[in-house]
Amino acid sequence: MAFSYSRGTAITFLVLIFTSISCIINIPTAEARIRRYKWEAKYEYKSPDCYKKLVITINGRTPGPTILAQQNDTVIVEVKNSLMTENLAIHWHGIRQIGSPWFDGTEGVTQCPIVPGDTFIYQFVVDRPGTYLYHAHYGMQREAGLYGSIRVSLPDGQSEPFAYDYDRSIILNDWYHKSVYEQATGLASVPFSWVNEPQSLLIQGKGLFNCSTPGIQAGLCNSTTPECFPYVMTVVPAKTYRLRISSLTALSALSFQIQGHNMTVVEADGHYVKPFVVKNLFIYSGETYSVLIKTDQNPSTNYWMTTDVVSRKPGTSQGLAILNYYPNHPRRPPPTPPPSGPLWNLTEPRLAQSLAIKAHPDHIHPPPLTAHRTIIMLNTQNRVNDHVRWSINNVSFNLPHTPYLISLKHNLSGVHTRIPPPTGYNLKNYDIYSVQDNKNATISDHSVYKLEFNTTVDVILQNANSMSNNTSETHPWHLHGHDFWVLGYGKGKFEMENDTRTYNLVDPIMKNTVPVHPYGWTALRFKSDNPGVWLFHCHIESHFFMGMGVVFEEGIDRIGKLPSSIMGCGETKDIIHKP
Amino acid sequence: MAFSYSRGTAITFLVLIFTSISCIINIPTAEARIRRYKWEAKYEYKSPDCYKKLVITINGRTPGPTILAQQNDTVIVEVKNSLMTENLAIHWHGIRQIGSPWFDGTEGVTQCPIVPGDTFIYQFVVDRPGTYLYHAHYGMQREAGLYGSIRVSLPDGQSEPFAYDYDRSIILNDWYHKSVYEQATGLASVPFSWVNEPQSLLIQGKGLFNCSTPGIQAGLCNSTTPECFPYVMTVVPAKTYRLRISSLTALSALSFQIQGHNMTVVEADGHYVKPFVVKNLFIYSGETYSVLIKTDQNPSTNYWMTTDVVSRKPGTSQGLAILNYYPNHPRRPPPTPPPSGPLWNLTEPRLAQSLAIKAHPDHIHPPPLTAHRTIIMLNTQNRVNDHVRWSINNVSFNLPHTPYLISLKHNLSGVHTRIPPPTGYNLKNYDIYSVQDNKNATISDHSVYKLEFNTTVDVILQNANSMSNNTSETHPWHLHGHDFWVLGYGKGKFEMENDTRTYNLVDPIMKNTVPVHPYGWTALRFKSDNPGVWLFHCHIESHFFMGMGVVFEEGIDRIGKLPSSIMGCGETKDIIHKP
Repeated sequence: MAFSYSRGTAITFLVLIFTSISCIINIPTAEARIRRYKWEAKYEYKSPDCYKKLVITINGRTPGPTILAQQNDTVIVEVKNSLMTENLAIHWHGIRQIGSPWFDGTEGVTQCPIVPGDTFIYQFVVDRPGTYLYHAHYGMQREAGLYGSIRVSLPDGQSEPFAYDYDRSIILNDWYHKSVYEQATGLASVPFSWVNEPQSLLIQGKGLFNCSTPGIQAGLCNSTTPECFPYVMTVVPAKTYRLRISSLTALSALSFQIQGHNMTVVEADGHYVKPFVVKNLFIYSGETYSVLIKTDQNPSTNYWMTTDVVSRKPGTSQGLAILNYYPNHPRRPPPTPPPSGPLWNLTEPRLAQSLAIKAHPDHIHPPPLTAHRTIIMLNTQNRVNDHVRWSINNVSFNLPHTPYLISLKHNLSGVHTRIPPPTGYNLKNYDIYSVQDNKNATISDHSVYKLEFNTTVDVILQNANSMSNNTSETHPWHLHGHDFWVLGYGKGKFEMENDTRTYNLVDPIMKNTVPVHPYGWTALRFKSDNPGVWLFHCHIESHFFMGMGVVFEEGIDRIGKLPSSIMGCGETKDIIHKP
Repeated sequence: MAFSYSRGTAITFLVLIFTSISCIINIPTAEARIRRYKWEAKYEYKSPDCYKKLVITINGRTPGPTILAQQNDTVIVEVKNSLMTENLAIHWHGIRQIGSPWFDGTEGVTQCPIVPGDTFIYQFVVDRPGTYLYHAHYGMQREAGLYGSIRVSLPDGQSEPFAYDYDRSIILNDWYHKSVYEQATGLASVPFSWVNEPQSLLIQGKGLFNCSTPGIQAGLCNSTTPECFPYVMTVVPAKTYRLRISSLTALSALSFQIQGHNMTVVEADGHYVKPFVVKNLFIYSGETYSVLIKTDQNPSTNYWMTTDVVSRKPGTSQGLAILNYYPNHPRRPPPTPPPSGPLWNLTEPRLAQSLAIKAHPDHIHPPPLTAHRTIIMLNTQNRVNDHVRWSINNVSFNLPHTPYLISLKHNLSGVHTRIPPPTGYNLKNYDIYSVQDNKNATISDHSVYKLEFNTTVDVILQNANSMSNNTSETHPWHLHGHDFWVLGYGKGKFEMENDTRTYNLVDPIMKNTVPVHPYGWTALRFKSDNPGVWLFHCHIESHFFMGMGVVFEEGIDRIGKLPSSIMGCGETKDIIHKP
C-alpha cells in the first residue's frame, strides 16, 4: 500500500530526509511526495504455473506490489524479512541511487544482507520517469519470486512524447521447479550440474506447466487451480495502450508478441525511443520497454499474448496470456492458436532490433565525443579450480563477505586487493570462434575497477565461444548506478580502429541493460559521476552466480557517513557506528 | 580435523585465551589442550536414506565430524558459513558454557546468526567427561543434517566407574524429505499444515526409504546407492563395548535395541548412572546415554541394531543397522529378521525406565534439599491468532530479532517487556485429560524468567491433552547452560503437597534433557549459578518452532564484555564495539 502525504507533511518529511541523508543531488521539488511502502517478505506455497512450490512473496504476492510514483518522489520501503533462516536484499533496478549509494540493495557490494526478523528501510529518490523494476539481489534469490515493477510517471502537467489512453505493466519471467538452493548447489558443485532449461515461462507471474509430464511428484501439479489461469489483460476497443513490458528471466532471452497487434516501441529502460514498429519484441533479462498498442482488431474475440525462448534451443513451452477485448469473457480462449515465435537461433533480427533503438529526437542526451579510458571485457566460459565459471578477462567474479562499499569507504584492510583487475585482453591472439583453454583463469580476489570521478568510460563487451562447440550465448549486461549510452553493436571481434568509427554519437539510446549478441560485441559509454560502488554484471541469474560480473568504484571520498543499517556482516561488525 | 598441540604451545594459547576471554571460571589444568577444528557448512546433495535431497554438511559430512576431547580441554571451532543465503548457529548440547555464555550457539538467545561468508569462532571449555552433541540451533535447521557428536574423555590416568574395551558413538535420528523451509512454512501457515511422520529413521546418518513408494518424484530414490547401505558397527567377539547412543530426532521418541544383546546403562547426559540392564533403550531427542554391551553371542553371524518409533503411532519403517561380528562380512544380513519394537502406545515401560535412572553411588551430586522458588509449567497445545502453537502457561514462545543476551546485557530498550512470564497455572481448575480452549493464549512478548543468582529453582513440567482427543504427547525438555536434578516423574496432575514428598533427594540423576510423559509431570531442580541467558525448551524441532520454550536469565551483571562476533542483527548494529 502506498500512502501519499499532503504537501505539508511532505515538507516535514523532506526536512527529515535532508537531515539524515547528507548528499542528495536531485532535490525533490515542492510537489515531490513521500511514497511509503511496508513490505513483509515470506516463504509461501504458490502454484504460479500449476506446480506447487515454495516462493518468496511480498505481502503475500509474487510478483510483489507495483511501486507507483512521480518523478522526484522519495520512495521509502520498509522491508521486514520473515524468511525464517534466509537473508535478503532488494535491488531497485534502473534507479541510479544518486546520493543514496548504500540503498542500491546489492548484497556484498552496497550492503550486508538483511537477516530474518530485521526490518530494513530503503529510501531513495526516483529522479526520472520511466519503467523500472525491483528484485532480490542476493545469491539466486530473485528466482524464488521476489520481484516487481516500479512505474515512475511525469509530474502533473508534463507530458510524454507520445499519447495513450491507458497504462499497463507486465513482467515476463521464466520459472524453475527446483528451489534456488538446489539450483545453486548444482552450479557450485564438482562435477558441475547445470540448471537446464526452465519448466515454464510466466507472464505477469502466471504460467502453465503440463501436469501430465512423466516422473513429477504426485500431488504437486494441478492444472485446474485458478492460480495458474493465464494472465488476462482486459482492454476496451479502439484505444491506445501503453504496455510496459519488462523481463526478469533467470536464463531465457524472449520474444514477446500479441496476436494480430503491432507494437510501437517508445521507451527503453526509462529513456524515450525514436518510435519504431515491431511484430515481436525481443527482450532480455533486466530490460524494460514501453510499447504502444492500438486495440483496433476485431473486438468480438480475445487474442493471445505469447513469449518464446530465443537464443537458446527452447526446452520450455510458450508462455501464454490473454488480451481480452471487453466485454468478451476474460477467460474465453482466442479462436485461433497462438502464433509461433521466431526461429530461436537467428541472431540477425535480434541484432537488428538492438540497432533500431535510438533516442527520441526530442530527448537526446548527447554523449561525450571521446572517452578518458576504454575497458575491453572479454566474456568467456572457463574452468577455474575444476568449477565451470564465467569470467571477464579471465577473472571470475565472486562476492566478498564484507561489502565493497563499506570496506572501501572505511579502508578496511585485508578485504580487497589493491591490484586493479585486467582492463583488457589480448584480443589479437584470442580465437573467439572456438573453445579456448583460458588456462590462467582465476577467481577474483575482490579487485575493483577504480574510475576517476566524473570521467568518461567506454566499455567494450566482447562475446566469444563458450565451453561448448559452436555456441556463443547472449548476455544481457546490467550496470548499477548509471545509464550508459549504447554506442554500437558488431559482429565478430571488436577492432578498435575501425569499430569505434561506427559508433553512434548522434542519437544513441541510454540504457541500463544491454545484450551482447553471440560472437559479437557491444560498446557502451558512461560518466563516472555517481559516487559509490557499482556492480556491472550479466543479468542471467546463473551466469552472475558463476562469476560474470565486475565492480566499479567512483568518488568514494564524496560519500557521506554510511548508515549502520547496511552493516552487520564480515569486517563491518567492528566499525564504530553510533545511532 | 583436530590438531593437538604440545604442552608448551598449549600454554601459549592459554595465555591468549585469558587475554581475550575475561571470565573463564573453569581454569584448564596444565594438561588441558586446545582442540581446534576448522569447519565449513555447505549445502550438498546426499542420499542418507536412498532419497536424494539437499542437506547441510560439515566438511562434506552429515553427521559432521566427531569432536574428541579430554576433560578441561578448550575446544575451538571455526565455522565458515558457505550456505549461500542462509545463516546458521551451532549449539554445543550439554556443554554448560561456564564463562562463555555467548558461545552457546542459540540464535536469538545468545547470538545473532552467522551470515553466509562469515567465519564464526566458538571457543569453550569441556569441563566434564561424557557424551554430548552439537547441532544447528536456528529455525528448524538441525533437521537439514547439521549435527554431530562430542565425546569428552577423562584426563589420562583417571578411570570411569565401569570397564570396557572399546568406545563407539551412534546418533539416532529421523528424516524428512521435504526441506526445512517447506516444513516450517507449513507449520507457520493458516491453515496449519503439519509435518507428518518422518520418511525414515537414521542410525548414524543412514536409513532405508522404500523407493517403490508410489507418487515420489522420478530419479531421486535409488536403493542401490552405497550411501544408504545400513550403518555397520564392526566388533570383535568376547569384548565389552561402550556404546554412546544419542538421539537428535526432529519428532520421534525411539526405542533402540540390539538383537540378542542386553545393554547396561552406565551414563546419561554426561553423568554416571547406577547401572541397570535393558533389552531396549527408550531415548528422546536431545538425550545421550552410554550403554555397555558384551559381544558374547554366536560370533558366526551379524545382528540387527534397530530403532522403532514409540509414543506416536508409527508411520515410519524401523531403522536398521548391522552389528558386525568380525570377521563376518560387514554387509552380510543377519540370518533372522530384525526384532519388532515395543508397543508404541504403552507409557508404563517408558516411565519405568525414566524412574530407573539414578546417579551412580560413587558419583552422587547431592541436590539442595529445598528450592528458593518453584515454577510450574503447564504444557499445552493451543490456537493463538489462528495458528496452531504450543504454549507454557498459555504463553507461546517466539524468538526476538535482537538476541536476549545482548539486549539484556546492554539494556536495549523496546526489545523485551519487563513483565515476567507467568510462573504457574491454576492447575486446580484445569482438566489435563481433555481438549481445552485456552482462550487467553498469547504469543510471548519476549519476557524472561529472571532468576536470582545462585538460588535453587524447581520446575514442574506438567503435561496435558493436546488439541486432539485422547492425545498427550511426550516432550523431551532440554535446558541450556545447566544440568538439573531429576527429582521425580508422576502420572496425572502434579499435587504440590503430596508429590513433592515423593521426590528423590538421595541419588537423583543429573541430566540436561528429560521427558515429560503423556498426561504426566516431571520435576527438576537446578541452581542458577551460571551467569547468562539460557533457553529451556522442548527438543522436538517442530514443537519448539511452534512456541514450546522459555528463557531464563541469571547473573547477567556478572557477565563480561560480549564479543562483537555475536552482534550484527536487530538492535545490536548500533552498539559501539571496538575490536
